Amino acid sequence: MSARSRIAQIGCGRIGQVHLRNLFAYPERCELAALVDANEPALTSIAADYRLTNISTDPSIVFDDPTIDGVIIASSTETHAAYIIEAARSGKSVFTEKPIALDLESTDRALAAVDETGTRLQVGFQRRFDRGYAAARQAIENGDLGAIEMIRDAMRDPAPPPLAYLEKSGGLYRDMTIHNFDCVRWLMGDDPVELFAMGSALTGDDIVAANDIDTSIVSMRFPDGSLASIENSRRSGFGYDVRTEVFGSKGALHVGDSRQTPVRRYDASGVREDHQYFFLERFRDAYEAEILSFLQAVIDDTDVAVTGADGRAALRLAIMAESSRQSGRPVVASEFPSEIEIEPLSRMIISA
Amino acid sequence: MSARSRIAQIGCGRIGQVHLRNLFAYPERCELAALVDANEPALTSIAADYRLTNISTDPSIVFDDPTIDGVIIASSTETHAAYIIEAARSGKSVFTEKPIALDLESTDRALAAVDETGTRLQVGFQRRFDRGYAAARQAIENGDLGAIEMIRDAMRDPAPPPLAYLEKSGGLYRDMTIHNFDCVRWLMGDDPVELFAMGSALTGDDIVAANDIDTSIVSMRFPDGSLASIENSRRSGFGYDVRTEVFGSKGALHVGDSRQTPVRRYDASGVREDHQYFFLERFRDAYEAEILSFLQAVIDDTDVAVTGADGRAALRLAIMAESSRQSGRPVVASEFPSEIEIEPLSRMIISA
Amino acid sequence: MSARSRIAQIGCGRIGQVHLRNLFAYPERCELAALVDANEPALTSIAADYRLTNISTDPSIVFDDPTIDGVIIASSTETHAAYIIEAARSGKSVFTEKPIALDLESTDRALAAVDETGTRLQVGFQRRFDRGYAAARQAIENGDLGAIEMIRDAMRDPAPPPLAYLEKSGGLYRDMTIHNFDCVRWLMGDDPVELFAMGSALTGDDIVAANDIDTSIVSMRFPDGSLASIENSRRSGFGYDVRTEVFGSKGALHVGDSRQTPVRRYDASGVREDHQYFFLERFRDAYEAEILSFLQAVIDDTDVAVTGADGRAALRLAIMAESSRQSGRPVVASEFPSEIEIEPLSRMIISA
Amino acid sequence: MSARSRIAQIGCGRIGQVHLRNLFAYPERCELAALVDANEPALTSIAADYRLTNISTDPSIVFDDPTIDGVIIASSTETHAAYIIEAARSGKSVFTEKPIALDLESTDRALAAVDETGTRLQVGFQRRFDRGYAAARQAIENGDLGAIEMIRDAMRDPAPPPLAYLEKSGGLYRDMTIHNFDCVRWLMGDDPVELFAMGSALTGDDIVAANDIDTSIVSMRFPDGSLASIENSRRSGFGYDVRTEVFGSKGALHVGDSRQTPVRRYDASGVREDHQYFFLERFRDAYEAEILSFLQAVIDDTDVAVTGADGRAALRLAIMAESSRQSGRPVVASEFPSEIEIEPLSRMIISA
Repeated sequence: MSARSRIAQIGCGRIGQVHLRNLFAYPERCELAALVDANEPALTSIAADYRLTNISTDPSIVFDDPTIDGVIIASSTETHAAYIIEAARSGKSVFTEKPIALDLESTDRALAAVDETGTRLQVGFQRRFDRGYAAARQAIENGDLGAIEMIRDAMRDPAPPPLAYLEKSGGLYRDMTIHNFDCVRWLMGDDPVELFAMGSALTGDDIVAANDIDTSIVSMRFPDGSLASIENSRRSGFGYDVRTEVFGSKGALHVGDSRQTPVRRYDASGVREDHQYFFLERFRDAYEAEILSFLQAVIDDTDVAVTGADGRAALRLAIMAESSRQSGRPVVASEFPSEIEIEPLSRMIISA
Repeated sequence: MSARSRIAQIGCGRIGQVHLRNLFAYPERCELAALVDANEPALTSIAADYRLTNISTDPSIVFDDPTIDGVIIASSTETHAAYIIEAARSGKSVFTEKPIALDLESTDRALAAVDETGTRLQVGFQRRFDRGYAAARQAIENGDLGAIEMIRDAMRDPAPPPLAYLEKSGGLYRDMTIHNFDCVRWLMGDDPVELFAMGSALTGDDIVAANDIDTSIVSMRFPDGSLASIENSRRSGFGYDVRTEVFGSKGALHVGDSRQTPVRRYDASGVREDHQYFFLERFRDAYEAEILSFLQAVIDDTDVAVTGADGRAALRLAIMAESSRQSGRPVVASEFPSEIEIEPLSRMIISA
Repeated sequence: MSARSRIAQIGCGRIGQVHLRNLFAYPERCELAALVDANEPALTSIAADYRLTNISTDPSIVFDDPTIDGVIIASSTETHAAYIIEAARSGKSVFTEKPIALDLESTDRALAAVDETGTRLQVGFQRRFDRGYAAARQAIENGDLGAIEMIRDAMRDPAPPPLAYLEKSGGLYRDMTIHNFDCVRWLMGDDPVELFAMGSALTGDDIVAANDIDTSIVSMRFPDGSLASIENSRRSGFGYDVRTEVFGSKGALHVGDSRQTPVRRYDASGVREDHQYFFLERFRDAYEAEILSFLQAVIDDTDVAVTGADGRAALRLAIMAESSRQSGRPVVASEFPSEIEIEPLSRMIISA
Repeated sequence: MSARSRIAQIGCGRIGQVHLRNLFAYPERCELAALVDANEPALTSIAADYRLTNISTDPSIVFDDPTIDGVIIASSTETHAAYIIEAARSGKSVFTEKPIALDLESTDRALAAVDETGTRLQVGFQRRFDRGYAAARQAIENGDLGAIEMIRDAMRDPAPPPLAYLEKSGGLYRDMTIHNFDCVRWLMGDDPVELFAMGSALTGDDIVAANDIDTSIVSMRFPDGSLASIENSRRSGFGYDVRTEVFGSKGALHVGDSRQTPVRRYDASGVREDHQYFFLERFRDAYEAEILSFLQAVIDDTDVAVTGADGRAALRLAIMAESSRQSGRPVVASEFPSEIEIEPLSRMIISA
């Protein structure tokens, strides 16, 4: 009989339900020990479907249960840091959705708790578990591309989120580009020394009301002179779009279009293919792989693949980008204060 | 709380384990009530991993349990028909891997049992649940392609199976092409009136020893004059290959290449992509969808999507193809006897 | 100063104008010495545009001019054989559009004249000069694919030609499939030992009036057991379609879709690409390359790349296919009479 | 008889020979009246091949011949402006390879001469005549993409040029990126208001010796808030790479990979395609189309498609980019002096 871990989950919204499905599909690695959500009707309904009985709106059923090995945190962003701290103090392994927090101070408190208690923390940068991105990283490590000279990393959402979401999002760079920052620094194997951000608000009144941007290009220089460009948009018109191109001295590698089906339709107007519309579809396998990776780390008592330090580093780049955009100037990493000096977006900073 | 079905599974080999994983991932639709396999050590090991207790090498634990709603039959081919009959007589819904049997007589006995008892039988032609093939069928039904004029359906395995498999397989047409026969008649919405098969043994001694072929082209004519071509090979050199092209008066639709990742690698030798190597990978989602469809039919007490009659029709075409190949002549469907007249492959016909 | 050849052209219709353009683009290899066409107004207009003065409706200006090295024959099919004979007897190299003739007897007379006079004859199977098909042939010769096991060769026209064309075309197999027959035997490096043809008339009254078919599948077996399938249609609904797949023991090679531009359009309905509509577009470069190859053979006094024997062999396969279709039986090549026994299509056989 | 123009060409190096071939292929539109090149042996050899007699190393045979309608300037960059001025003063239409000059002052003198004499000047931004880019522009004009929000335009050369070329090139932005600047402003239909350039020298000693860069990202903001990113590299490792993505509120359009052949090779290592290696191959048709467009403007006495003002605007952006890169600061277009203030690259500025 294989070893398996007892896992609790906090939060069963959209992404939480993705995790639940994946946990159930691997009974040999995981037993779902408890489910918590602040929304009681939703919790009750989902628990009934899944025949779960150890449920509560109170997360203490997780933290007070010594038989629970690990916690999946899929609750709203402003709760992440506090739950990480409680989980760490109760000796449990933690998987948290990104970001740890919207500010470095809260992030640092959470990381300190993990550090002090010697538990493990995995941050939900699922892209690293996508087979395409994993192949890109492997090719770079193998030296297949030679010396990396440039990375272009683009991500677009199908349509802008509602104002209510935008107001709590932390802004484009902390909410969306943070995935690109993690991806680029992971592929580069380094942090940038300089960064310049250019942004615009093109999609309408909500973005302006949130004091945010929806369209952005961030360029970065790395210690060895290699460059990177990140493109983002809150609106694509054609569905979720994530694509990354890595250029090296010996060749290039593109992580490109992802299709729903291998169907091509030919008619008088040409040839048509479909396109994945949503990130949950694009990264379905990656969400499964990241949870399996976390479970394996818990079972084997080993390091996680994406650390809290990774989460902090990506957040810091997001804050640097926001600073660059607001000042209209490049930001030099070595001169950037650990005390954050950017103008907060209206209603943006939320204490943990 | 959603309704869910109590499902037993017989057989936990390669394809059985695929079904098990999918059953566990949907606890709101299914409770795994029993697991049976003739191989006791394998059964014990898998059951331990999944924490299953109601297990046996004796399938009577399934047929004698009135609380079980449905049975997944994933055991070896020669057992299918007998288990279908027992399951039908105990009033259970049945999902069986293809084929129902290697001969029409056994098939007809199984179908008669299902018919008499009024249960339901779904045959595991998983391709119909692939999103690409489902889109093809939908486009045809919508009239997007106009009148269908030709279908080309190709399937290749990465490498020939071992002699032991070949000897029990029923030959290329019953073992492999049967999927193409189902696919083409499903897409055409009709059965062919004429069929011609040309085959060769090119991969080596095993195929010759099994009195079988490994390379084949079957051409078919349908009542409205439309044509179809099926290509098969037991060896591709590059992995599993399934691709289908439908040509109509207004356009065409191809179900084409399927890749592991959306990665393109550029170097001095050109551009490289990956390719799926195995059918389990290509049809992973289809295997999930066919089981979900079966569970839904059980829960909702509705018809299944792929019937026993479909299984029989595809088998009949396979037998006609074998007859054409052996005689070197086209076969006219209306003149083909229900009594099968082909020379049996050596050691090929196995009673249920 | 490079050597160049003095070339005359007979016929300046659609394909003739393609050749003219290519001849002019390479003044270092060719001087256009004379232009002949039966249609005087068309000839006069084109000659004026190109500033050509040595023109006539009478081809004797070509055959009687000892300074002319070679002749491009792009006139109507029924004139090819006679012009080849006259050109050969006047000692000129000949490039002729396919087919040499619609019957083997005329073909053999033309080949005999070439043989007796020791001139050279190139047949316009332009596909062999397409970079895609040339790469396929090269890969096969290199052994990249291992032993060739199957070829699938498909060609579709955008829309059926008018009745007037159909009546003089020689039927689908001699007019259209002849390209596929040449391509398959060239790639296989061999001639088939057995052939079976299945055809239908699906596009309407004209095809029926011409006693012809518009949709066909031909399957063939080669001496080593390898198989081939040829698909044709007179109607695609989406433009010209030519694609070929070669399968070997070590891998496969596809000559696939050909696009007008590398543009992909993304919107809510998916992704769209364009598609070449016409064979002149698809094989534009091949038409240039075949003429350059012919010019080079004339200048260097070497063999041509596609011989009269190739033209005859493809025609014979076309006649075998027509015979198989009409009889509903496979045709064995070794038993097929050199005296052709097929029923002539109505008004189909045209003496040279 | 169609009207045709009498055209002279100055320069018969690599790109000059491309133009020559295209001029000869259209005898109905153009008569080649004279050929000039400073390299007498090369000139003599090429003229002999093409049977041209009116040749000289002295361009006055062009400017002094009143029967010549137009001049193709394909000589070295430092001669362009002076030849444009002479051609304009002798009343001839001019097609010049890019750039007009490496500095704005020389450019302005050339444009003034064209303006004063009322002749026409077309600049060789051939990309605009590529069918892919033309389709992109048309889609934007049609409103297919909605409001344009971002453009990403990437161009990479297979390998860095030799030092001798680099020293006379004017630097990456004037030599290479100038094509991207033209392309982006043409697609946007506007000029940027702000620009930021980040560059590195990664390919070795030659680039450093030339005081140049080989890797660059330029980001730009346009008056309506839309953004653009230009990526360049002097080294790709896999061949010439040009690709452009246009993102709008309703969808996107990519001008993507361009292949030599539609061949896909399948083997155990995956699937391989080829890739065009050189810009002459990628833009072969565009070079033909731009010359045909120029000839037509001469014949019809109409405006050219790419004007001297376009050439000047692209050069100004290149100079702004060089300034931004050297200062490490964004450049605001409205504040950028017409007097150029950048540090000249060593040995870079060449008087016309």
